[in-house]
Formats: sequence, C-alpha cells, structure tokens
Amino acid sequence: MATTHTREQRAQQTIRKIEKLAAETLAQIQASDNPTLQIPIRALSNVSWNEDRRLIELGDRRQSREFFNLNMAKKFMQTFLVAAACKELLKSGKTTSIRDLFYMTKHTIKGSRENTFDDQTESDPIIEDLEVTVDALREELHLFAAKRGSMVGPMTIVDAGDTINLARMGSGGWSIPSITENHVIQFKQCEAEYILLVEKEAVWHRLNEDKFWKKHKCILVTGNGQATRGVRRLLQRMHNELKIPLYVLVDNDPWGLYIFSVVKQGSISLAYESMRMAVPTARFLGLRTRDFKTFGLSDDVRIALEKEDENRARQMLSYPWFAAKHWQTEIKDMLKAGFKMEIEALSNKDISFVTDVYIPQKITKRDWLV
Amino acid sequence: MATTHTREQRAQQTIRKIEKLAAETLAQIQASDNPTLQIPIRALSNVSWNEDRRLIELGDRRQSREFFNLNMAKKFMQTFLVAAACKELLKSGKTTSIRDLFYMTKHTIKGSRENTFDDQTESDPIIEDLEVTVDALREELHLFAAKRGSMVGPMTIVDAGDTINLARMGSGGWSIPSITENHVIQFKQCEAEYILLVEKEAVWHRLNEDKFWKKHKCILVTGNGQATRGVRRLLQRMHNELKIPLYVLVDNDPWGLYIFSVVKQGSISLAYESMRMAVPTARFLGLRTRDFKTFGLSDDVRIALEKEDENRARQMLSYPWFAAKHWQTEIKDMLKAGFKMEIEALSNKDISFVTDVYIPQKITKRDWLV
Repeated sequence: MATTHTREQRAQQTIRKIEKLAAETLAQIQASDNPTLQIPIRALSNVSWNEDRRLIELGDRRQSREFFNLNMAKKFMQTFLVAAACKELLKSGKTTSIRDLFYMTKHTIKGSRENTFDDQTESDPIIEDLEVTVDALREELHLFAAKRGSMVGPMTIVDAGDTINLARMGSGGWSIPSITENHVIQFKQCEAEYILLVEKEAVWHRLNEDKFWKKHKCILVTGNGQATRGVRRLLQRMHNELKIPLYVLVDNDPWGLYIFSVVKQGSISLAYESMRMAVPTARFLGLRTRDFKTFGLSDDVRIALEKEDENRARQMLSYPWFAAKHWQTEIKDMLKAGFKMEIEALSNKDISFVTDVYIPQKITKRDWLV
Repeated sequence: MATTHTREQRAQQTIRKIEKLAAETLAQIQASDNPTLQIPIRALSNVSWNEDRRLIELGDRRQSREFFNLNMAKKFMQTFLVAAACKELLKSGKTTSIRDLFYMTKHTIKGSRENTFDDQTESDPIIEDLEVTVDALREELHLFAAKRGSMVGPMTIVDAGDTINLARMGSGGWSIPSITENHVIQFKQCEAEYILLVEKEAVWHRLNEDKFWKKHKCILVTGNGQATRGVRRLLQRMHNELKIPLYVLVDNDPWGLYIFSVVKQGSISLAYESMRMAVPTARFLGLRTRDFKTFGLSDDVRIALEKEDENRARQMLSYPWFAAKHWQTEIKDMLKAGFKMEIEALSNKDISFVTDVYIPQKITKRDWLV
C-alpha cells in the first residue's frame, strides 16, 4: 500500500499549505489588520529566462489582494472559495476538472443577486493564483485540465494501482491521464533507450503500426497537438527517473517550434511550473526546412507560409531561448524558404518513410538541435 | 493466427471490389465507350429515414462521372488515384490517415503545372465517393479519421494481437483506436451488463475514479465530445456481439441531443454507414430539462439558450427521427425553459452526485428515452 500512503502524504502536505494561508489571514484579522494575500504576478513582466537552468522562470514580484478594497474584495473571497473546495477534494481523495470546480464553487451570495463566479474565465485564473500562492501544482490541488495523448513502448507502469504493460497495448495504446504525478503513475521495468514525442496522432499510429518502438526500443508518445500538462509532466518524469533522452518530432512550422519549445523550457503563461514540466535537454528531430533538400522531398509538399506564420516566426527570433545561433539560423531558414511542411509530407515518398528512413537516420547521424 | 487470416481475407475482399471497378472501366474503354463511374449521391436529397430499421439510410440515386467531360475528367482521375493508393495500402497490410493519403496521392501532373490534388478538401470527398461506389467502409480501405476517446470496464479484449484487460487500465484507460473492425479488435471475456457512453471526458474521469464501472458492471466509454467513427463502430459491435444495452449521457443542449442522435441512427452526411455504426436502441439518460426540478438543482447551473441553440432545437423538431411524441416534448421543454445545462452541473450538488445518485437512479427507475 505504498502508493496510497504516498498519495495521502502528498494530500496532507497540500492541505497544510492551504491551512497555513488561512491561518495567516486569520492572524491579520485578529490583529485588526486589513486581510491581505501576497500573490506572485503571473505575467511577462515577472517572467525571466534562466540561462543556466535553461528554463523560463517566474520572478519574485507579488501583488497584494486586500479584503477591504472595493476592487479586490470579490477576488479575495473567490481565492478562499477555491482554496476551500480544493481542501475538500484533498480530504476526500478525489480529483476533478477545472470545469467541475467552477460548478462546485458557483452560487448566489445570500441576500444578494451577486454570483460567486459568473463563468469559468473567472475561476481559472483564481486557480492559477492559488497554485503560485501556496506553491502547489494544479495536480497537487487535485484539479486537472483536459486529457489527451497516447503512449506505447517496452515498459511497464503502475497507474492507480493497476500494472500495465505498455508493450501489449494493441493499436490504441494507453490513454495518458490528466494527472501523472508519482502518487498516480509509477515506472516499473523499462527497456526503452529513449522517448519519442510526436506532435501528430496519425504519425504515432504509423510508428505504432510499424512497431517502430519495438525495433528501436523507445517509448512512443503523442500529445495530439500541443502536449497537455499531464503529458509534459510524464515526459519530464520519464526523462529524469529513467535517465533516457527525449526526442521531439513536429511539423516544420512556427507552431511546431512552439510545441517543441514549451516541452523544452516551459511557456510564459505557466512559467511557475517550468521546473516541474520542462525537459531542457529535449532534442529537436525536425521537420526542418533543410530536410526538404536532404531527403529529396517533392515540391508538392511545400505549403506557403502565411502572414501569421511569418509574424510568429519573427517574434520567436527575439525569444532568449531561441537566441543561440543554430536556432536563429533554423528560424531564418524557414522565413527565407517561405514554406512550411507537415510531418505527413514524408508519406509523399513512401508510407513508411518516416519509420524506415527519416527518424533512424536522424538519430544515427545525431542530426538534431538542442 | 486466426486474426491475421481474417484481416488478410478482408483486405483481399476489398481489393477485389477495387479491381472490379477498374475492370468495368477497362471494358468500357475497350468497347470505345466514354468511361463512366456510377457514384451514389451523398446528399440530403438522397437520404431517407427508415422507420422500421430506425436508421438514416442512403437512397438509390446515382450520379455519372465521365472521363470525356471537361467538368468531370479531373475527379474521374482522382477517384482512380485514390483507389490505387488504397489498393497499395491493402496489399502492404498498412493503414493510414486521410491526411496521409492526400500526401501520398498529391503530385504535379507530368508536363503540366496542374496538381492531382490541391488540398485535402479535394481528396476527402473522393474517399467518400469511393466508399459508396465500391461499398467498402473507409476502415476497409485501410484509411482512418482522427482517434479520440477512452474506455475501461470488466472486459478483456484483443487489440492487434495484444490481450488487454480493460479492468486494469488505471486512471488513463485504453485509448480507443481509429479502426475498431473485428480484424483489429476482438472481444473476449465480458462481465459487463451494459455500456455507458458519456460525452464529457471529465465526467468519464469522475466515474472511473469512483470505480463506477466496477460497482455497476458496465463498460465506460467517452468520445471526448462527438463520438468518432472508431468509437461508434465499437459501440455497435459491443451492443450486437455482447448483447448488452447502450446508455448515453450528454449535456442538456441541442449539441448533446445531436451527439446522441448520431450514435443512435447515424448522420445525414454519412448515411451510407449508418448500418455499420448506429445503435437504434440506444437509451438517452439525459441530462434532461426536467432533471433540473427532479434533482433539485440550483439556479446557478442554468445557462441561457443562445439564438443558435434555439434555431438548432427548432430544426431538430422537424427531423423524422425526433418525430415521436416524447422527443417532441423533450425538445419543446428545452425551448420553453429557455436554458441549457452541462453534465458538470450535477457537481454543484456534490462532486460524486453523478456517480452515486444520478445515473443509478435513472437506470433503476428506467427513466430514459429511446
């Protein structure tokens, strides 16, 4: 029952953090002070690039949220309402979606026509405020975002007490849950030598059908587009705990680069979680603009960059995490070529070209970017 | 090796259908006729409601597609291009996405600047044309659409040769593949007494975490929104082969009703596949407008119907499959009440209200619509 124990311990720890917040506020009230929360600012102005750790990090700046302040009283109340609901979840050992939490905490305030929350766009930022204020990830508050993504590979895991052999998952694979913390998912036997994250589900299917993961001993993951928090946390845990490298295969366009960069060093809006989610050593397998020539792809697969792509790419040139010369060259190559390509473009050569040639050649020749 | 055999037999059968199409066209050429394909029309004008079978069905009307016709020559060529690519897939035993097929068949026609296909919106309808013309489902042509949805329950399946115990799938569940035909998925031992399809992934998570499927012996499926073709085909196969009823739980809004109706009797645009996908006896568990009173829900969970919802609901009143009195009443109730509700609304009472009260009570009291 080690798992249950750990899970309960984790919950107790988070409950204590919430109770500490409440106790401090009560102390302010008893001292007849204006009850005030100090909430770290989650905005570009308080985000910085840590060159050494290669992570996007949240700074130290905080904002005050006061009870006796007409503009802040409602948010003050909402913060404690969300905190109370999370404590209830933690005590009952249940987890829920952020949509559900909105419904759990929404009600009309007695003797008024005012709602605690009018819609979810009000409760979501409060959750993020609580995360940074008590220093607990959303998952530690027993909340989760959408679930998406599948995984197979030569590896056995334990998920909520069930032992699952990921080498025997058929054509569908194991559905990656929203919460992949170590109190839910544990890694057992693993024969994989690396992790391969592919952006596109259809490419994952191709690689799974061709049993790529078996031949090349890798864990095959797709995020069905941008990797969810659950997928990112799982990638980081596998990378750290199993000590194997992570390769990422995305479309050759600014969105693909963005997906890669979030996996690698985190995002601006969730900078406070980079430490728990990012894999700074992630290796970029492509597609790259120069792959068009290297692999002799036909003109048919080129898609002209749109204005929006160009703007996005130019913006990326200014990000400190893309400041290294090889990234500047990569992005400028794309802009200069004026086209983008999807991973599926490789099927124009042969349906299993991605499996038989592209990925093995890239890895063998160490042809990746970090 | 029974599985492999069946799979190969199925592929051979489909190859013969494609070859028959080609042979007929060749015969026309040898007879110096204008080569012409007869393609069933996939439009509202050729769709009808079969009251006895309770299915939306495709009619008998066909359109000619001629080679010597300036407006049809390109589509004629495209049809055979797609057919040839599918034959190649079938011969190699591989399956692929419709996006991939687009890339496989896209090229510049020699000696011209004309592309075989300019984008996927051109190749997708050609695939559907081929499906109805040779009478083979997309999956039988070894093509698939997007994958989405998860499943758990007291049941063992075989997926692509791997035996998977769906009662031991942890918090994530088994990821439902795109192709769920019987040459890929076989059902082994099953202790489930019914199937429960829930629209929302978060609700599926709640039911899985509460181990609802264990206590109530059911197969728990989510389509993450509208059920994919893979999910629908799987639901129909489980319903028919395991001889257990299917319950559907969706939001209380026109979109929820639509999701239910597609599972139940098929859709207009894919009417030719209803027979292979629909479950005409599917039972509608709600949410229903009257649940608001029955379960004493609070005003907070009501969301005002938008203009679009109202239009959609009024349109539904005219569909023959909603002509029965109880459906007319149901839809009119929603319009009269003027609000919609999400399944998550039940969490306003208690986080496990859906698990502990709502579903069990509905099933015990046989409080569903068919």
